[in-house]
Amino acid sequence: FSSTTPITATLFPGDGIGPEIAESVKQVFQAADVPIEWEEHYVGTEIDPRTQSFLTWESLESVRRNRVGLKGPMATPIGKGHRSLNLTLRKELNLYANVRPCYSLPGYKTRYDNVNLVTIRENTEGEYSGLEHQVVRGVVESLKIITRAASLRVAEYAFHYAKANGRERVSAIHKANIMQKTDGLFLKCCREVAEKYPEITYEEVIIDNCCMMLVKNPALFDVLVMPNLYGDIISDLCAGLVGGLGLTPSCNIGEGGIALAEAVHGSAPDIAGKACNMANPTALLLSSVMMLRHLNITDKAERIQNAIINTIAEGKYRTADLGGSSSTTEFTNAICDNL
Amino acid sequence: FSSTTPITATLFPGDGIGPEIAESVKQVFQAADVPIEWEEHYVGTEIDPRTQSFLTWESLESVRRNRVGLKGPMATPIGKGHRSLNLTLRKELNLYANVRPCYSLPGYKTRYDNVNLVTIRENTEGEYSGLEHQVVRGVVESLKIITRAASLRVAEYAFHYAKANGRERVSAIHKANIMQKTDGLFLKCCREVAEKYPEITYEEVIIDNCCMMLVKNPALFDVLVMPNLYGDIISDLCAGLVGGLGLTPSCNIGEGGIALAEAVHGSAPDIAGKACNMANPTALLLSSVMMLRHLNITDKAERIQNAIINTIAEGKYRTADLGGSSSTTEFTNAICDNL
Ligand SMILES: CC(C)[C@H](C(=O)O)[C@@H](O)C(=O)O
Ligand SMILES: CC(C)[C@H](C(=O)O)[C@@H](O)C(=O)O
Repeated sequence: FSSTTPITATLFPGDGIGPEIAESVKQVFQAADVPIEWEEHYVGTEIDPRTQSFLTWESLESVRRNRVGLKGPMATPIGKGHRSLNLTLRKELNLYANVRPCYSLPGYKTRYDNVNLVTIRENTEGEYSGLEHQVVRGVVESLKIITRAASLRVAEYAFHYAKANGRERVSAIHKANIMQKTDGLFLKCCREVAEKYPEITYEEVIIDNCCMMLVKNPALFDVLVMPNLYGDIISDLCAGLVGGLGLTPSCNIGEGGIALAEAVHGSAPDIAGKACNMANPTALLLSSVMMLRHLNITDKAERIQNAIINTIAEGKYRTADLGGSSSTTEFTNAICDNL
Repeated sequence: FSSTTPITATLFPGDGIGPEIAESVKQVFQAADVPIEWEEHYVGTEIDPRTQSFLTWESLESVRRNRVGLKGPMATPIGKGHRSLNLTLRKELNLYANVRPCYSLPGYKTRYDNVNLVTIRENTEGEYSGLEHQVVRGVVESLKIITRAASLRVAEYAFHYAKANGRERVSAIHKANIMQKTDGLFLKCCREVAEKYPEITYEEVIIDNCCMMLVKNPALFDVLVMPNLYGDIISDLCAGLVGGLGLTPSCNIGEGGIALAEAVHGSAPDIAGKACNMANPTALLLSSVMMLRHLNITDKAERIQNAIINTIAEGKYRTADLGGSSSTTEFTNAICDNL
């Protein structure tokens, strides 16, 4: 990568506070001289028949073309006849792994000070199959689907990630003592991949026990890989350990090297709006850092990440959700000053 | 209830440390003059064809007859052709609700000091249906079954419990944004029951968000009711908040007023054995207190519970898992002295 060639990336500012925090990313990228050109796409106001959702076909094409993007919060409009925006993105772009690093932020005190782990969630199947039906009146069933292909794919990614990031251990999270066939297949795939990475310690932890260990001593964990629903649950639990979704980034990895970094918090419609300017852009900023790392723009990623962490650690400029009184703009300016 | 009529209760000491901690319960009950006569049953050494498990038919008959019992940890023997002991008990005795109070113990420091909640878990269906199959090579599915009957039954129990125990709020935990039909039916049943309890606040919380809130501020919760797998996960998470499964009791409620109180921790084969005498009997003791409350032997329940809590709070006699050096016997003697 040469710093003179700009890279085009798709930007979904999203709804609610999305545009405000996306503005913050743009400002920091400019201040850090990051060679990214944004192609902005907004959620549509009516259903696009080609996507069956409020996401436009053009916006999906943009990610497919650029292979890299950043996404703010999207509130799925209420009503029938269309799909959840987040699920549509995952499905259409085949975003098979959701990666969420989760670490204690120096200076921002929670009950835990030793968290440094990464959850890697299978993002396409499991309980999210959408296959449900009523068997007879009063009896309904949902299908949890686990495939060898998707399990191998996310396991490969987890071990690859662990190795590339100097991590030492991968824990596969499961409930195979109850779901012997589905979670059993998931574990079998993890074991197969683990054999190819003798330098990485591999272990299997039952999900209930995992959650208990996480709240007692999260330092026991390094990289966690798991089926979709467990990933949904555990990644939020882990975010809670270090302060919540406002502080934790994520990145979705798709087939063919697509990466869509994403702030997974909500759109906070209650505090959205220019006049308000209260939103905390940290999760989206740290997600943009994950995007840069994916693009191997490591120096800028490092610089921006340090500026964010230092600004929070100094504590002079913090947004209201972190107990401060700074506006989004003041916090962003402080980060730029710290670059 | 008159204190002169002894009640017969089934006791499953269980495996590993089970017999040692059951001994502790017997000693405390004797010291507190509790009018219980134990009918002891052990896990068999071969499969009983009538139960398809190592549990004997006689032991199940004993619980059915006495309608009340106490159970230590049971390690399901490895091998095929039989069912998990815990699952067999739940199924055969129709133990439809698993109740786990979870509160911070004064004097035993964890990261949390304000936990006081109760998880009520549907215990018979959901992801525990046992229905799984391979669709084609490399594609397996598990069925999650939710029925109106079981959902109403556990919701009824949760609201009844809340009211009877002076609790103010019931939170139904779900993922109905994804599993609209199964978790949707569960919620619908909870809403129906909630209408009959206008004095209890009712709310619905998505499981991922629930786990985040639990680790950030568990004081937000009071009574939680949920489908089987979520209950499995969240009850262990909550136990972790206050110190782990060694300290938290549980009681299974069955049709027709059966109650089987149970220590849900493992059998700790590593520290089991008379010579060792290291096991912490707290979870089984507090479970026996739940059994007494179920029998309306409230004065004794209160007295024993206070003696346990005070012994731990004083801190002079604690077992090794709590950082002390007392034997099971010394800890039990201290509780008896505190009665
Ligand atoms: C919004 C919801 C559909 C989504 C999920 O369940 O995956 C969210 O919780 C997440 O983790 O991204
Ligand atoms: C041992 C296992 C089958 C059981 C369960 O999953 O229900 C345990 O975790 C529990 O919570 O009682």
